[in-house]
Amino acid sequence: QEISDTKFGKGLINFTSKDSSFSVKFAPRMQFRSYTSWDYDGENYEDPEQSFLIRRARLKFDGWALTPKLKYKIELGLSSNDIGGGSVYTGNAPRYILDAVLKWNFYENFELWAGQTKLPGNIERVISSGNLQFIDRSILNSRFNIDRDIGIQLHHKINLGENFVIKEKFALSQGEGRNVNVGNIGGLQYTGRLEFLPFGEFIKKGDYIQADLEREPRPKLMVGAVYDFNDDAVKTRSNLGSYMLLENGEFYRTDISTIFVDAMLKYRGFSVMAEYANRDADEPLAMVQGETENSEYVVLVGNGLNVQASYLFKNNYEIAGRYSRNNYEEVTGVLDPEQYTLGISKYIVGHKLKIQSDVVYSTLNDLNDNIIWRAGFDFHF
Amino acid sequence: QEISDTKFGKGLINFTSKDSSFSVKFAPRMQFRSYTSWDYDGENYEDPEQSFLIRRARLKFDGWALTPKLKYKIELGLSSNDIGGGSVYTGNAPRYILDAVLKWNFYENFELWAGQTKLPGNIERVISSGNLQFIDRSILNSRFNIDRDIGIQLHHKINLGENFVIKEKFALSQGEGRNVNVGNIGGLQYTGRLEFLPFGEFIKKGDYIQADLEREPRPKLMVGAVYDFNDDAVKTRSNLGSYMLLENGEFYRTDISTIFVDAMLKYRGFSVMAEYANRDADEPLAMVQGETENSEYVVLVGNGLNVQASYLFKNNYEIAGRYSRNNYEEVTGVLDPEQYTLGISKYIVGHKLKIQSDVVYSTLNDLNDNIIWRAGFDFHF
Amino acid sequence: QEISDTKFGKGLINFTSKDSSFSVKFAPRMQFRSYTSWDYDGENYEDPEQSFLIRRARLKFDGWALTPKLKYKIELGLSSNDIGGGSVYTGNAPRYILDAVLKWNFYENFELWAGQTKLPGNIERVISSGNLQFIDRSILNSRFNIDRDIGIQLHHKINLGENFVIKEKFALSQGEGRNVNVGNIGGLQYTGRLEFLPFGEFIKKGDYIQADLEREPRPKLMVGAVYDFNDDAVKTRSNLGSYMLLENGEFYRTDISTIFVDAMLKYRGFSVMAEYANRDADEPLAMVQGETENSEYVVLVGNGLNVQASYLFKNNYEIAGRYSRNNYEEVTGVLDPEQYTLGISKYIVGHKLKIQSDVVYSTLNDLNDNIIWRAGFDFHF
Repeated sequence: QEISDTKFGKGLINFTSKDSSFSVKFAPRMQFRSYTSWDYDGENYEDPEQSFLIRRARLKFDGWALTPKLKYKIELGLSSNDIGGGSVYTGNAPRYILDAVLKWNFYENFELWAGQTKLPGNIERVISSGNLQFIDRSILNSRFNIDRDIGIQLHHKINLGENFVIKEKFALSQGEGRNVNVGNIGGLQYTGRLEFLPFGEFIKKGDYIQADLEREPRPKLMVGAVYDFNDDAVKTRSNLGSYMLLENGEFYRTDISTIFVDAMLKYRGFSVMAEYANRDADEPLAMVQGETENSEYVVLVGNGLNVQASYLFKNNYEIAGRYSRNNYEEVTGVLDPEQYTLGISKYIVGHKLKIQSDVVYSTLNDLNDNIIWRAGFDFHF
Repeated sequence: QEISDTKFGKGLINFTSKDSSFSVKFAPRMQFRSYTSWDYDGENYEDPEQSFLIRRARLKFDGWALTPKLKYKIELGLSSNDIGGGSVYTGNAPRYILDAVLKWNFYENFELWAGQTKLPGNIERVISSGNLQFIDRSILNSRFNIDRDIGIQLHHKINLGENFVIKEKFALSQGEGRNVNVGNIGGLQYTGRLEFLPFGEFIKKGDYIQADLEREPRPKLMVGAVYDFNDDAVKTRSNLGSYMLLENGEFYRTDISTIFVDAMLKYRGFSVMAEYANRDADEPLAMVQGETENSEYVVLVGNGLNVQASYLFKNNYEIAGRYSRNNYEEVTGVLDPEQYTLGISKYIVGHKLKIQSDVVYSTLNDLNDNIIWRAGFDFHF
Repeated sequence: QEISDTKFGKGLINFTSKDSSFSVKFAPRMQFRSYTSWDYDGENYEDPEQSFLIRRARLKFDGWALTPKLKYKIELGLSSNDIGGGSVYTGNAPRYILDAVLKWNFYENFELWAGQTKLPGNIERVISSGNLQFIDRSILNSRFNIDRDIGIQLHHKINLGENFVIKEKFALSQGEGRNVNVGNIGGLQYTGRLEFLPFGEFIKKGDYIQADLEREPRPKLMVGAVYDFNDDAVKTRSNLGSYMLLENGEFYRTDISTIFVDAMLKYRGFSVMAEYANRDADEPLAMVQGETENSEYVVLVGNGLNVQASYLFKNNYEIAGRYSRNNYEEVTGVLDPEQYTLGISKYIVGHKLKIQSDVVYSTLNDLNDNIIWRAGFDFHF
């Protein structure tokens, strides 16, 4: 072991072995949250409800082995929210593994990934939950994202001229989400993402970090587009949601496609992130073949918009605002949520030690007001 | 990484980073147990039943970050006993996290805690399960303790004169126990604990360690008292036990208060620990409003007494005796258990590597005799 | 901490403490798998089904404490397959702990083990899943092995003459498998294994590693025999399978005995492993006492044969073939499976980083053909 100088925020363990046969960064992290919410009963706001939560707690290993061209990442969940959602499809086991993936740079700018990790979906999802500028992600993300899955990915990068960078990411995956171990019930899932960085790479991969902590001296922009096709999908939100197991004991299968267009812009402490999502399904109503009424499940088709902007002051306080709205198609029978979020963050050691608070004002079909005040901290080695 | 000289019992990993930005001690531990029990059928003792168990197995991280004034502790459970008890209230996830808490010494003798950890309840509970002098805690503890919860705590210390120390501990918590992630169904829980150490602090925090391994040269005493109020509690043992979900689909709510008075005395290898507990509830019988019969749940109201004494010989063998009795109120319909325990421990490397054995003679309402012979070891980096 | 030179494949952390009070090797590992299968419908092979899986993912700690004579091993599972199978008998907890055991060399060649670990059963089972030459173990193993259990073991070794080594291993265990925490429902389990190594010890414990990576310059042979007796067993496959809980709420108990005879031979890159298994039960049909029809469970009695041979080329490619057949007794009503497997492995860093693929042709009662093509890699610090 050749011991590197590690420091808080750079991993609890961080070294390259003496013979340069591997490197490792090991980092635990946790998020503490307090929620206070007021429901509006049509005339008044009711008494508040108060709760506390360890929202996320994780152990993360990453580095390379044999050669810097062979990278690995293993991330494990610890909190109830991280590992819940086990079912007969995960062997009734908690969903302990988030990432378990090898990334092999086998030729020039090509990288082959194998294992379980995030699909190249919408930017907000791919940004680590440890690098957010609000207490949590938006409603667009929670309803339309394509999360993690198991399979293989191919990543490639093109440098055009002095600065212009184009990245292409393709994934072939099982299409039923993470930690599934009953085989593949539906068909496979195909994902392609294209990214354009017309002004070059962000400092320290800042396109996938919220808040302009690097205070980019020149404007940086990333614009991305995703097309995802889940062949014979068996879950209500592509590779997320409920398995559509019909009363007759068979799975309902339908092709689901998801489109994202998103962008990240950073300049001198300002940042703007915008996303649009659209989900469509061949036949969104899940019914036994031949029947025409009483669908047991509905694919959550529709679209969403999320825009957020922020400014980071010199003292590392940041204010941020967010507008989010989902419009589900009528067939779903689901009400359309809309949210306004105003947040403040103090980055003590960047995203590694930060205190955050935000206020969320929500409506459903422009009714049913609700206000939530959220506060919390991140602690991340 | 500045590598400190670690040794067995001081953590598997134990260092302060070179730039003094954090410190960490990481320690796995496990407890192996063998149980042999004989039931008395009224005339004879029946054939014994034999079983083995990994009673506890844990991973613990603690230290400080940024400054020694900001301490952290993360403890994770591994054994079936540690992580069992998951339910719909924990997202059907195993209860993997024991502690996930930050402790901030923000001003003089004041410390603010935020996260999930033990409440400042009865001494026996707050003493780590790795520092016990019997194979396991008493029946007072198992029925009346207030365990861990999530929220915030404020700790303070007063030094009076040369030696006299007073400690005050307050907690505001969710009141439904650890790892709950469905929000807060009942009201909040309020805990206050006052401790008096008239002869000064114990050596190496020995007030919260069983067995006088430090052989205190002068007598040391800690006397404590706890008042705990769980507002609109929804579980049968305050923040432990079953959720009182009634047949009509609603939760039964009642205020539950718990009182503890306890003491620890140590002197030259002798130690005495004594505890009294009392639990009361507004309306212990859980019934649908308006009904007067057939309660579905009962709050376990009553009181308990536990006294134990021990002597540690020069060769680090210890003998210890314990008397425990719980008296539940008649409304509970639960029989009163009484236990006599006689134990012997060999501390090879203090509590870190020890072999223990004890014999427990139990009765229920002075009937139903049962004898258990227990043996095991602790292995703790 | 005295830091040893660690390298990939020798543990992510590997050191002896400066004061020589303990040593530790910590190693994460994972296995990624791809499965493609074709069923034969009697006339044609159907369309293939494709799935991916993190088959195993583990964290392993081992080393010694206080003295090299006191060894420890803790192995934790992470994947759905590793930790699934939780039930009311494991406190509804996932089966997170694989091994948690101390091994004490208390006198000459005697070693006492206490804790949960593999029983001294058939060789294929005791070989780590990280040291296999096919994508997974055989059907003999999956139906007849006696897996892990909790209790104590006594190991001893005799050196006869210059080379001849005899090893004796005895285990007394609970007999219901790993992570059970409801006590012991049936009786205890007794296991004895005798091993003969007429030509001396294998290089680097190669008798318990598949593939002759050490290219033994002289022939090495290990022949072993196991007799296992599970007194009043309550599960259908001795300490594995389903608990035989009858309709009347009682457990069905019957004595189950399992016999293994196995051998490992290695010489200059060649290796042969052969195993025979036989399981018998007093009364294999589980029925309420007095009844004679409609057994609810059946003990899986019968026998199995597994033979595999391989050659490792100079470039660390290996080809291996395997034949496996189980014959269940008629009383079980279970069809007899037969499998032919042809595998190829590339050992990049021995078993620590390897890529494998195999093809399995299966029949049931010589019918119901099925072909599976499997591929995957192991990544093991």
